[in-house]
Amino acid sequence: MKVAILAEGQLAPATAKTAIGVLRYAPYPVVAVIDSSRAGSDAARHIGVGADVPVVATVDDAIALGAEVLLIGTAAAGGRIADADRPFLARALERGVAVWNGLHERVLSDPRLAAAAKRGGGTVRELREPPSDLVIGGHRRPRLGARVVLTVGSDAAVGKMTASLELVRALGRAGERAAFVATGQTGIAIAGAGVSVDAVVADFVAGAAERMVCDAAEDA
Amino acid sequence: MKVAILAEGQLAPATAKTAIGVLRYAPYPVVAVIDSSRAGSDAARHIGVGADVPVVATVDDAIALGAEVLLIGTAAAGGRIADADRPFLARALERGVAVWNGLHERVLSDPRLAAAAKRGGGTVRELREPPSDLVIGGHRRPRLGARVVLTVGSDAAVGKMTASLELVRALGRAGERAAFVATGQTGIAIAGAGVSVDAVVADFVAGAAERMVCDAAEDA
Repeated sequence: MKVAILAEGQLAPATAKTAIGVLRYAPYPVVAVIDSSRAGSDAARHIGVGADVPVVATVDDAIALGAEVLLIGTAAAGGRIADADRPFLARALERGVAVWNGLHERVLSDPRLAAAAKRGGGTVRELREPPSDLVIGGHRRPRLGARVVLTVGSDAAVGKMTASLELVRALGRAGERAAFVATGQTGIAIAGAGVSVDAVVADFVAGAAERMVCDAAEDA
Repeated sequence: MKVAILAEGQLAPATAKTAIGVLRYAPYPVVAVIDSSRAGSDAARHIGVGADVPVVATVDDAIALGAEVLLIGTAAAGGRIADADRPFLARALERGVAVWNGLHERVLSDPRLAAAAKRGGGTVRELREPPSDLVIGGHRRPRLGARVVLTVGSDAAVGKMTASLELVRALGRAGERAAFVATGQTGIAIAGAGVSVDAVVADFVAGAAERMVCDAAEDA
């Protein structure tokens, strides 16, 4: 599964958090980053990671490089899809490319994007869509002997996920069994599973965290 | 607007939190509490408040006493509508009585209750339904000179709302301008407005609180 990352007009350290995290940690190949204002260079020139990943101007360019998935690589506060992104998403869906979205706003709630998906067969994976069967917390027992490391920060984009992924890597190198539990959309895009807890109804956040942590402790 | 409170099989201090809060503080008359297992006494005998409020066995009894609204007065963890409550809710809706529900589960998501509402014209007010236009926090400035008192507790049903309401009453008696901001379903049932923050998608809880507190500071 080859992935292109959309960061139109935003391929910079302060604005392309998801792109940076995915380029740094994802297990799948990233074939291109799309930002028409920075096309013709490589991603590392702008965000320090992705030395071999070309920045291209269009979805068609990314498809020519093999892209089967278009991941939205930026995240504005409030979680709306940027207007500048919509033509790119429409083109991807129209050409049968899957869209992965970590924003609160749902891709198919935009009638033009829904129409493009219908025409071209592109599917949508909503990374922030919570499971429908969450319960409140307090019912499960962590696996005996498991230790939980919670990374906490006083703002967004300060390195909570990065610290967690580095700890898991280091523990792996040290021969320990360890697992990363993704609680945000970038982590989910990297790990392939998880729950974006800021998209969960507040009463069920503790239950979601408990389920993920206990499952991870049992499976690691 | 005359209200009856449903507390079937649960009219006791540990289980009828909403009933107790409403009997103690609501500005509207409560004409009956429904609990068929305790019918024939008054509410105060079981929960310490409601000395003149009869406990009755059926919705029809409550309607005979003038009830125009049936408020669900209990709240199980997880927020499901109790199976024991469903026949009472169906009867109310069938007889054109409005239902006020503070649980997570929506009344009309039960096909039998939806059918009863259709037959009898009873409406439903979902106290926990969040506004659709919430934003993340950090955009408004509290009104100059306003003080915010936040009541915090380490568990449910420990008196956060009660302390707030008593503070507002005492400040009113002292000649101060003060307003209660309801952040839970019982407070909303009492005050008539508010946002049940535990039913809000987590990313928007701070914005909901900010809006309510700033509005209250401007209007008090």
